[in-house]
Amino acid sequence: MSQTTKHPGALQTATVTLADIERAAEVLKGAVAETDCDPSRTLSSMLGCEIWLKFENLQFTASFKERGALNRLNALTPEQRAAGVIAMSAGNHAQGVAYHASRLGIPATIVMPEGTPFVKIENTRRLGAQVIVEGATLEEAAAHARDYGDRHKLTFIHPYDDPLVVAGQGTIALEMLQAVPDLEVLVVPIGGGGLISGMAVAAKTLRPEIEVIGVQAELYPSMYNKIRGTKLPMRGDTLAEGIAVKAPGALTEQLVRNYVDDIVLVSERDLEHAVALLIEIEKTVVEGAGAAGLAAVASNTERFRGRKVGLVLTGGNIDTRLLASVLTRELAREGRLSELCIDLADKPGQLARLATLVGNAGANIIEVVHQRVFTDLPAKGTLLRMVIETRDRAHLNNTLARIREAGFEAEIISNP
Amino acid sequence: MSQTTKHPGALQTATVTLADIERAAEVLKGAVAETDCDPSRTLSSMLGCEIWLKFENLQFTASFKERGALNRLNALTPEQRAAGVIAMSAGNHAQGVAYHASRLGIPATIVMPEGTPFVKIENTRRLGAQVIVEGATLEEAAAHARDYGDRHKLTFIHPYDDPLVVAGQGTIALEMLQAVPDLEVLVVPIGGGGLISGMAVAAKTLRPEIEVIGVQAELYPSMYNKIRGTKLPMRGDTLAEGIAVKAPGALTEQLVRNYVDDIVLVSERDLEHAVALLIEIEKTVVEGAGAAGLAAVASNTERFRGRKVGLVLTGGNIDTRLLASVLTRELAREGRLSELCIDLADKPGQLARLATLVGNAGANIIEVVHQRVFTDLPAKGTLLRMVIETRDRAHLNNTLARIREAGFEAEIISNP
Repeated sequence: MSQTTKHPGALQTATVTLADIERAAEVLKGAVAETDCDPSRTLSSMLGCEIWLKFENLQFTASFKERGALNRLNALTPEQRAAGVIAMSAGNHAQGVAYHASRLGIPATIVMPEGTPFVKIENTRRLGAQVIVEGATLEEAAAHARDYGDRHKLTFIHPYDDPLVVAGQGTIALEMLQAVPDLEVLVVPIGGGGLISGMAVAAKTLRPEIEVIGVQAELYPSMYNKIRGTKLPMRGDTLAEGIAVKAPGALTEQLVRNYVDDIVLVSERDLEHAVALLIEIEKTVVEGAGAAGLAAVASNTERFRGRKVGLVLTGGNIDTRLLASVLTRELAREGRLSELCIDLADKPGQLARLATLVGNAGANIIEVVHQRVFTDLPAKGTLLRMVIETRDRAHLNNTLARIREAGFEAEIISNP
Repeated sequence: MSQTTKHPGALQTATVTLADIERAAEVLKGAVAETDCDPSRTLSSMLGCEIWLKFENLQFTASFKERGALNRLNALTPEQRAAGVIAMSAGNHAQGVAYHASRLGIPATIVMPEGTPFVKIENTRRLGAQVIVEGATLEEAAAHARDYGDRHKLTFIHPYDDPLVVAGQGTIALEMLQAVPDLEVLVVPIGGGGLISGMAVAAKTLRPEIEVIGVQAELYPSMYNKIRGTKLPMRGDTLAEGIAVKAPGALTEQLVRNYVDDIVLVSERDLEHAVALLIEIEKTVVEGAGAAGLAAVASNTERFRGRKVGLVLTGGNIDTRLLASVLTRELAREGRLSELCIDLADKPGQLARLATLVGNAGANIIEVVHQRVFTDLPAKGTLLRMVIETRDRAHLNNTLARIREAGFEAEIISNP
């Protein structure tokens, strides 16, 4: 690696080689888990290719970010170690830096934006870091971290645009190719690009015929735009917040250009489905970004048919409310949870008649709302919204048919 | 093992020894996963003891039941194999039998009760079994399975009360003691008692000083009643449906009497909390029964303090709607999701004022229901029910305080 510098301009000349990644693997040995890389028989048969999963969500802080953080921390001079480090992150990078700095006896300061959940702040503190909550946005928090770090002579640990961080993340590819030497494709999420850069350097050097495909969320196609010269918009809330990065790195952009074959985009629906699949089939909890690789394969099955595909489950830190909502929406897509809208004559006994019908059909009523005022119906009509649970889509259709046969007008109004 | 018989009376004289379990381990080698047995640093520090987790939820069919099923199937005579087997189960036993019978080329018939979700029927069929849906209850389905099996000369594979099944489940203890030879306590869920019987025989023979503690759901204390001579009621829906067994086995009762030190009961709330903990901390999906061991430790921390405790995560087959609901209820317990009831004067601008207050406090409004008719308030008053999301309990209390300071009467009405 030619240099590790804080001056962005100089990064253009820095690069990362297989030797750097192999050195990183030595540094990580015993301190970062060599996570399992297992085949998934069920996903393979569902998707028509051979799926191998690398369980980085089972790292101690539940993400691969520990690798780059530790490799970067390990390279600090004794003076830098004594002075300490600073990082900005409300997520996985914060925990990776906090945990390994504390292990190495290096004081760590983490800047988190305002509104960061208390539980994340507490977790990061428990890992041994000082936490400063400052800045209304990620950008403001980052600016504060730079500024505070300069004033206190702390080394800034960049989450991706640093050759040592890239080399650390690249160790994942070494482990995957050791487990499955004849992997044909790697499908890797891209946020800032640190993970895919390191993995692509390692994989393409060891096995030039391997294909490396990056994945971004449709809502944040930042590296995609850089590489393809497009100007797709970036906006909104994505389930894959871990890769919702507006500005990829300079070093990582160069490495992606040199080593990555293609970048595909995945929709929110693909991401949600992939998270739910991993819960249902693999019994493993993966955050949105961590499921991006599976989302890409599941939405492009022809491209991967019959091939040996390696996916990195990059992290497992998903908010439980979000997870509950993803699972519930998936049930709706499977026809197991549905909201019906039913026209009802506003007279006694109608709801009882309807509820009896639904019960006899074997469906379960979850929620009922009577809507009297805001309907198009005559004044004596009432609109009933009912959430029901059915065993599957066929059971839902059967239930709906029975309701209609009895003379009610009914529509399914939910289908996320 | 003295005999394997279909006549319940004879079971009194059958028993299971360490040698039977070691033979079962040979049978299982290469066909059933030797799942990981890993320490959990975070759970250990939370609970004040050293927690080791055995990940049986990561078996191919996502439960330990494969072990007993395969050991039983392997002992069939050539004639029995050719004729085929039958089992009754809507759950893990069905999948274990179906999968291994199919692997061994043994025709398998599984009887499932009416109302079994289509996806479970499909999964069992996909594993190679013929599925018969019959019987309004589990008991009726079991009777049908016995009857159908007798008529078609199929061997009935009992889910627990069979020495070969018990010996198969016991192999889990061999693997755990190999991974952690100085384990001090095993905490094991009890349904019919097959798992704990086998594990206790193996563990107590290899390491007599080990303590073996069984766990049942408070709602289904069947083995507990047998052993203690109590008559606690059995009723209701438990999250731990995998251990909601009304009639434990005769063989298993005898083995529990001889080898198990104690049985503890866990509440539904303990079970829900344990499932949520395993999702949040271990990133692993465990069904209610599979979390019973952790529930027992978390609700009896003094008893386990400082000790080396082995828990079996017995299975991961939890319905996603149930899982979503467990996660949501846990959020409510943590003060992150709350339903407030607020008295509002029924005039323009009141909701806007309230919503502004809540927003300024940094809380997120999830749902609002105006209740005008059924309140105790004067006719001009209205009762507002509002679900809000806050970062934690302190943030909730702070939000509530701001609402009250502004002159609204507000109460938290949800706290599961």
